[in-house]
Amino acid sequence: MRLSHLFTRTLREAPRDSEGRNYELLVRAGFIRQLAAGVYSFLPLGNRVLRKIADLLRSELERAGGQEVMLPILQPRELWEQPPLNGGLSRAEAYGAELFSLQDRKGRDLVLGATHEEVITLLASEFITSYRDLPQRPFQVHIRFRDQRRPRGGLLRTREFVMLDLYTFDADPESMDESYRVVREACQAALERCGLRFLLVDADSGAIGGKDSQEFFVPIEAGEDDALICDQCGYAANREKAEFVRDPVGTDEALEALEEVYTPGVKTIAELAEFLHVPEERTLKCVCYTAGGRSVIAVLRGDLELNEVKLTNVLTRAKLDVSDLHLATPEELARSGIVAGFTSPLDKDDSILIVADHSITQGRNFVAGANRIDYHVTHVNYPRDFRVAILDDIASAYDGASCARCGGSLHMVRGCEVGHIFKLGTRYSDVFHATFLAADGTSRPLLMGCYGIGVSRILAALVEQRSDEKGLVWPLRVAPYHVALVGFDMDKETTRTAAERLYADLQAEGVETLFDDRIESPGVKLNDADLIGVPLRVVVSKRSLKNGGVELKWRHEKEGKIIALDEAARTIRDLVQKRLHETES
Amino acid sequence: MRLSHLFTRTLREAPRDSEGRNYELLVRAGFIRQLAAGVYSFLPLGNRVLRKIADLLRSELERAGGQEVMLPILQPRELWEQPPLNGGLSRAEAYGAELFSLQDRKGRDLVLGATHEEVITLLASEFITSYRDLPQRPFQVHIRFRDQRRPRGGLLRTREFVMLDLYTFDADPESMDESYRVVREACQAALERCGLRFLLVDADSGAIGGKDSQEFFVPIEAGEDDALICDQCGYAANREKAEFVRDPVGTDEALEALEEVYTPGVKTIAELAEFLHVPEERTLKCVCYTAGGRSVIAVLRGDLELNEVKLTNVLTRAKLDVSDLHLATPEELARSGIVAGFTSPLDKDDSILIVADHSITQGRNFVAGANRIDYHVTHVNYPRDFRVAILDDIASAYDGASCARCGGSLHMVRGCEVGHIFKLGTRYSDVFHATFLAADGTSRPLLMGCYGIGVSRILAALVEQRSDEKGLVWPLRVAPYHVALVGFDMDKETTRTAAERLYADLQAEGVETLFDDRIESPGVKLNDADLIGVPLRVVVSKRSLKNGGVELKWRHEKEGKIIALDEAARTIRDLVQKRLHETES
Repeated sequence: MRLSHLFTRTLREAPRDSEGRNYELLVRAGFIRQLAAGVYSFLPLGNRVLRKIADLLRSELERAGGQEVMLPILQPRELWEQPPLNGGLSRAEAYGAELFSLQDRKGRDLVLGATHEEVITLLASEFITSYRDLPQRPFQVHIRFRDQRRPRGGLLRTREFVMLDLYTFDADPESMDESYRVVREACQAALERCGLRFLLVDADSGAIGGKDSQEFFVPIEAGEDDALICDQCGYAANREKAEFVRDPVGTDEALEALEEVYTPGVKTIAELAEFLHVPEERTLKCVCYTAGGRSVIAVLRGDLELNEVKLTNVLTRAKLDVSDLHLATPEELARSGIVAGFTSPLDKDDSILIVADHSITQGRNFVAGANRIDYHVTHVNYPRDFRVAILDDIASAYDGASCARCGGSLHMVRGCEVGHIFKLGTRYSDVFHATFLAADGTSRPLLMGCYGIGVSRILAALVEQRSDEKGLVWPLRVAPYHVALVGFDMDKETTRTAAERLYADLQAEGVETLFDDRIESPGVKLNDADLIGVPLRVVVSKRSLKNGGVELKWRHEKEGKIIALDEAARTIRDLVQKRLHETES
Repeated sequence: MRLSHLFTRTLREAPRDSEGRNYELLVRAGFIRQLAAGVYSFLPLGNRVLRKIADLLRSELERAGGQEVMLPILQPRELWEQPPLNGGLSRAEAYGAELFSLQDRKGRDLVLGATHEEVITLLASEFITSYRDLPQRPFQVHIRFRDQRRPRGGLLRTREFVMLDLYTFDADPESMDESYRVVREACQAALERCGLRFLLVDADSGAIGGKDSQEFFVPIEAGEDDALICDQCGYAANREKAEFVRDPVGTDEALEALEEVYTPGVKTIAELAEFLHVPEERTLKCVCYTAGGRSVIAVLRGDLELNEVKLTNVLTRAKLDVSDLHLATPEELARSGIVAGFTSPLDKDDSILIVADHSITQGRNFVAGANRIDYHVTHVNYPRDFRVAILDDIASAYDGASCARCGGSLHMVRGCEVGHIFKLGTRYSDVFHATFLAADGTSRPLLMGCYGIGVSRILAALVEQRSDEKGLVWPLRVAPYHVALVGFDMDKETTRTAAERLYADLQAEGVETLFDDRIESPGVKLNDADLIGVPLRVVVSKRSLKNGGVELKWRHEKEGKIIALDEAARTIRDLVQKRLHETES
């Protein structure tokens, strides 16, 4: 491809509306353009990278028994409104405003597919009748839609994106686990071949449902998620999910008597700790919610942070309707007799659901609210002074927390998930009556798994991880072109002829070449070559020709080397093939 | 691929809700399933055919200078609301209810892309600055949405479909014409390689705009369009566009005097002709419309059919607002003093716009309405008795009409367009200020063309054209697999071993093979093989083995032939390669 005719434009300056590194570089290098918030056009360079990533994923998943399909984007909304059989949110409720909704000309309610569990389960219920048909692993690479509240971070968080989703159907939990292992390994292999650094972390199942789930987590500064990793045993989990040990504080103290203290205007834990000269871990934090019309007080040790995802899961397991879970309003607090800012777990009847974190058992003589304006109570002890309906894990792990598996130290890493995989069990097959005839002649629901990999997000993550101050740095396997042929002095006969000849030779050798044939200064050309980030740069200049040929330089190298013009095309082809082979093995 | 594990199911019976041949066969053979009206899932077999068609198109268009991009599905509605600079409908108006519309969570109006002229023109306005950047030919293969009033005919008329669209940008009309020629030829080559029979016909530009346009028209019974073809000079046009000669009727007669006649209850042309014993071509037909708040009477000879597309174009050229063009309501007729059923072109003032077809000049002494209940007027002559504001072509050509080019006879063919190509001129570059610096230093608007090819519609058209009573018949180049390997008696050691060995050999030779390894009767297996329509069938049975090997049969052949098992894989590979090469040259 000739750069002079490429349908794009490189920019010297970062766009004004920069959304961070991948946005800035991909726009400047002419890979993408933004049409609306979180909605992008992929230009020829960007589209080539996207296709290469998708093809890598395809080939790995086909090897793992995947069969490619293409499912509809328009879906009847009613499919999304089926609640899970064991209660909990329907998918429409779980996605809420993230689900793009519309009506057709006849007034029928449709949604734009965010994922395809419903559609694939309907198909599976027709196609799979016997255990002999199993396992099945259909997948697709397709556009997906989510009306993000804050689309940002360039291609990291968009409203329209390219995703690969695979679904597994199996006869029993063991086979489901085996499918999960096979597909997870295929995804890992594909991500590795893409040149991405990532971790596999335990995750929350969120709106997809099901039990076990893991994420392919990419450590990048621009991410909006945190993962906690144990250096000792290797345990790794998303912060929404990460388990940790509550370190005991003063658990050997004697229980002292309750005492009300005057704490004028002291409302936050930080103010309280300062006012009473106690560390935060000697206080109890109360956060008030409403769910299903009922007041919920979440109680945890004051040094910890409440984890809403964990709380939601705990309430769901307790069969509470969490579709409207929200921080209690002043009216709701008043109705339940709760004094805002001085909320107390003490003296509550069963109309209020108290959910406490395990941390309240790892300490004594806490300070807590007195449920009276400007007063707190000291020496609060559980279970001596108050009852809780649920005692569970509702606090967020933190950097330096103790690993729940081995007691080692967890450290927190910022990043972003590029893939999320789930053991769904019978969450969807129950709803859509997707059963099969088992070997023993009984009819059983299919066991499902689902696996989503963000193709456009992988592209963004590669930029976040690998770019440098000069621009993009593509791994050979997903680079838009393998070779950037840069001709200096294209208005001079000697250099132009040599560059054009080498371009023709490279094409004849089947080398993917981006040929900068523009009449521009060497500086502009080298800057653009670095910005676009094609792995192998080949410069044809008066100097290189005088030195005996053309100059070869990999993107990461400081210095190039000269090779003879006559053998250049073949040498370059062999170099690229060798490098491709190396990254493969 | 093993048929026993293919994610699909073949059906013995046609589905109850049949929408015609392609729907019935594609559903029965397990290529597609319908999720909602005009919305389909492509199963592994259907998806493979779709990808092969798309890849054929891609390779031809890249050879013609095309560069692949991927543009957003979600588009701000305001882009679609820009009216053309020279007046006429905005695209939102032209598409009307066919444009899927929605709001995002912040209440911004979006549409689902039906085509991408706006988006690509915005990009071109940034990327193309000089005549040196031209020509440019970006294209994409992507999902498109249209909320069809009557989605039907299987994949012929869907609401969500796969389309290839290419856009050309050029410096002057000559270059635009050259781009049009190059891209049209590339499309033709691709359609031929797909194995499709089609015609190139002149067409109306419709909601896309621009001047010249042509369609790739596929003659099939299930189509909803008509094309007229001249056997003599080769002229071919969509009926919406087709020009023809109005044969004169009684033009040598003397003009007789107007006379009012009593025609009680006679309202239609057929009734009138019968009542007065005159042929229909001796009557004048009046059809009343309202457009832009104004009454319009369309007048044409009684034997001809009014062509609403031609009428709309005529009114648009006359700068009338046609966004609300509709048959006049009784109230509108009354307001204009028009007597329904007895409408007359006589005695009208300028408040009513009379648009007449050329046919009113090809006849004398017509019978027309008297604008009085139960009365008509005889011996009406133009221009003696009435004036018209516009005299133009507003009638539909018909089977047997005379060709406007050579006077030969037109014949009408039922069918469907699988592609539509347009010379747009500056329709969009004017609106979005897409200009470039010409060689003479002036700033000029880009000249555009656009080219849309329906990928999923090609698939449907292939089925309509090529299937037989047994099922689908795929051209080798787009077949889901090249070879159907059918093993009889898969529960018997000898046959199973032979079939499994041949399958392994075929895979080793890289032959795309669908292996029917199911334990089913030979009848079921042969029926399914014919239904799925893979081009080359290879049967391994006790009889074939006794006869010395395996039986080979192309889908269109009556009798197969035996080849030795040992050489089967290589022989089959060579046969397939040879046939692929033949269809290529």
